Amino acid sequence: MDENLAVMDEDEVHADRVAAILDAVEGRDSLRLASLMEPLHAADIADLLEQIAPAERAALLALWSGEIDGEVLSEIDEAIREEVIEALPDEVVAEAMRELDTDDVVDILEDLEPEEQDKILEALEDADRVAVEQALAYPEGAAGRLMQREVVVAPEHWTVGEAIDFLRGADSLPDQFYHVILTDPRMKPVGYVTLGRILSSRREVALKAITEDSFRTVEATDPEGDVAYIFNQYHLISCPVVDANGRLVGVITIDDAMNVLDEEHQEDMLLLAGVGEESSISDGPFETVKQRLPWLVVNLFTASLSALVISAFEGTIAAIVALAAVMPIVSSTGGIAGTQSLAVAVRALATRDLTSANAKRVVRREVLAGVMNGVGLALILGVGGALVYGEVWLGVVLGLAMITNQIVAAMGGVLVPLTLERAGLDPALASGTFVTTLTDVMGYLAFLGLATVVLL
Amino acid sequence: MDENLAVMDEDEVHADRVAAILDAVEGRDSLRLASLMEPLHAADIADLLEQIAPAERAALLALWSGEIDGEVLSEIDEAIREEVIEALPDEVVAEAMRELDTDDVVDILEDLEPEEQDKILEALEDADRVAVEQALAYPEGAAGRLMQREVVVAPEHWTVGEAIDFLRGADSLPDQFYHVILTDPRMKPVGYVTLGRILSSRREVALKAITEDSFRTVEATDPEGDVAYIFNQYHLISCPVVDANGRLVGVITIDDAMNVLDEEHQEDMLLLAGVGEESSISDGPFETVKQRLPWLVVNLFTASLSALVISAFEGTIAAIVALAAVMPIVSSTGGIAGTQSLAVAVRALATRDLTSANAKRVVRREVLAGVMNGVGLALILGVGGALVYGEVWLGVVLGLAMITNQIVAAMGGVLVPLTLERAGLDPALASGTFVTTLTDVMGYLAFLGLATVVLL
Repeated sequence: MDENLAVMDEDEVHADRVAAILDAVEGRDSLRLASLMEPLHAADIADLLEQIAPAERAALLALWSGEIDGEVLSEIDEAIREEVIEALPDEVVAEAMRELDTDDVVDILEDLEPEEQDKILEALEDADRVAVEQALAYPEGAAGRLMQREVVVAPEHWTVGEAIDFLRGADSLPDQFYHVILTDPRMKPVGYVTLGRILSSRREVALKAITEDSFRTVEATDPEGDVAYIFNQYHLISCPVVDANGRLVGVITIDDAMNVLDEEHQEDMLLLAGVGEESSISDGPFETVKQRLPWLVVNLFTASLSALVISAFEGTIAAIVALAAVMPIVSSTGGIAGTQSLAVAVRALATRDLTSANAKRVVRREVLAGVMNGVGLALILGVGGALVYGEVWLGVVLGLAMITNQIVAAMGGVLVPLTLERAGLDPALASGTFVTTLTDVMGYLAFLGLATVVLL
Repeated sequence: MDENLAVMDEDEVHADRVAAILDAVEGRDSLRLASLMEPLHAADIADLLEQIAPAERAALLALWSGEIDGEVLSEIDEAIREEVIEALPDEVVAEAMRELDTDDVVDILEDLEPEEQDKILEALEDADRVAVEQALAYPEGAAGRLMQREVVVAPEHWTVGEAIDFLRGADSLPDQFYHVILTDPRMKPVGYVTLGRILSSRREVALKAITEDSFRTVEATDPEGDVAYIFNQYHLISCPVVDANGRLVGVITIDDAMNVLDEEHQEDMLLLAGVGEESSISDGPFETVKQRLPWLVVNLFTASLSALVISAFEGTIAAIVALAAVMPIVSSTGGIAGTQSLAVAVRALATRDLTSANAKRVVRREVLAGVMNGVGLALILGVGGALVYGEVWLGVVLGLAMITNQIVAAMGGVLVPLTLERAGLDPALASGTFVTTLTDVMGYLAFLGLATVVLL
């Protein structure tokens, strides 16, 4: 409760601020606008731009464009980034890009149209342009696109004193770095030392003697999902990136890994709900339809399977119309059970806690849980149905159909994502539609089928 | 594709390793077991313990208990942690706990039964026990439980040289630290300096001149969800924690924040699917039933609402039994649409991208998208239904019911979580059940209602 009350107070403060800013924009009061925007962090400015209407956004940018910097562009949601960049004068964009680290430029460029990309690439300094082009040469979603090329390295035989002297004398160091990476003469990373260790050790100590146990590297072509997993699993702060020959080409820091983890979660949640993985709260109505309608059409056809099953039992329903009223209960409860089992399985696949080492045991567990849930629900529904309709056989049929469907649901929720994963697909992809189709069809089939047998 | 193939290879390697380890356990070959476990990271050992059956786990721990360390206990899933700790000799647990930082001890203790807690507290050194007890005095889920008490501070007037001399001379420094926190004479934090900046600046530079812009603090009573949000939003690496008087009491590092972010995602995903937020792939069948059955029973009753609605139209269905076959299509597609809209809204509430500043616009967007999706689906279903059944009026009724339900679904998907949030509840809590009940009832009502009007 307290947590949410605090959020609501913040929400009010935020709403007041947004109102004041839009007021300044409407009054074309650029001084007031600048003074309202000035204290905001780039990430908050980006959120603000995402939350206002397109027309308000255009007016705000027109009045404030000179002040927008690279950090804001880098924080802004992909759904509106292109729109914002196109609304800004070319020289403002160019200047903003020159301020950014190359990994952030790559992150912005990869979502833009080729001609916008070229315009920005031309505006970069030569060294940066080469770095950005090299990063873009890695496949989308690869570690090579996440990494920064600015690394702090030391030969493996150096001492703490040599490292400190080198750092003190260095012309330019990255904005953020947490380790000095030790390399062999062929630039292969062999370990790293935290800055805290360097600062607290005596000058004559060999760097090799104080390296971290957690050290590991990733390849530039590794998928970013693997990188996020490694950071989360092994509590890394930074991780050197190597090429196919094992030579150091860059470093990924935890803030980028946290970002990837966050995006992968979002993807899982959206895919599981049957909505395009690029859906955003800032989408306009047309983009929203584009992300949702295809899945709805698929569901229209899978739902027609249920209609087909029910059609086959029209004679039974004509004999006792009450069956039509109660049959959705069996299907709907099955759908929920399937979704429950699915959510746990998809999550466990994402965190690699569901592997072939325990898959069989998990499926057995699901079957058992399905039986127990089914019996529990069958008792309530069976007794309730028998009492309401005054027909014992109806209660028995409801109960048996419920048990059958609960078992199918629990198994389906694990087997569908496992099968998708084995087939090399994203286990969250369309699982929800598969599983609910399965439980709908099974629910109607079991209930109407059993009812028909009893009535014959 | 490549990503998943790589995962599958890894999965095989992993399965082989697990099989070899279980083989050694079965043969009671403790030497072979030790040599197989030795190269594994604590996080991987914890995963292994989670993935094997309870009996295998007990046998493995009996053979290997002497080697288990604090890090493994700290990595292990809450679902089986108590079981593991109870299986170990008291002195092994005590020794393991003494190795850990106090924040990790707190994380383990907070989920244990009081008597297990006391046993472990007694085994700690005095200073650590006091620190752990102080942390446990903060409410569960508060920043004070996440923080480590070991902080590296410097008076605000110090120079780089003074800080380096202090660090070099310090008796003991935390395992991981990334900033030196500057405090005023009353121990209020006023800024921080990264170790990289300290290492690359000249000795006479004032620390105050090289502090980070990103600096901000959290209060020890702030909810951990807010802390994770701040780390993610402002790309922090560490964040000082203050008491109600603004005095420094600890520091939270990004690996803990990443962990919280991960758990909050899991919670959202599970709650949205209508399954207890403590569900884990390692749960046994009884625990699984406990996490799922209550929601299923709730669904049983909400699904009975649909049955009630359908019952009211038994006369209509008796007249044309085909209606019973097609009516679930309207409800089911509505359920998917509601789930889509819900997933986007819950996610946006979690990332604070859906606020009162844009709530109205988002609801308008949903209505528009609902109309467009509805019209698209109505055309397919209406024409299809009319052709299959040779009845134009049936097509029209299907189409109109579909449009109505799609609008209700899209709006419900946003309004339900927004209402829960306003009421101070978790927006993901039971939203799925609410929304699908809404779309089920609306689907049957609109379709059967319209059909009745046409037939009369």
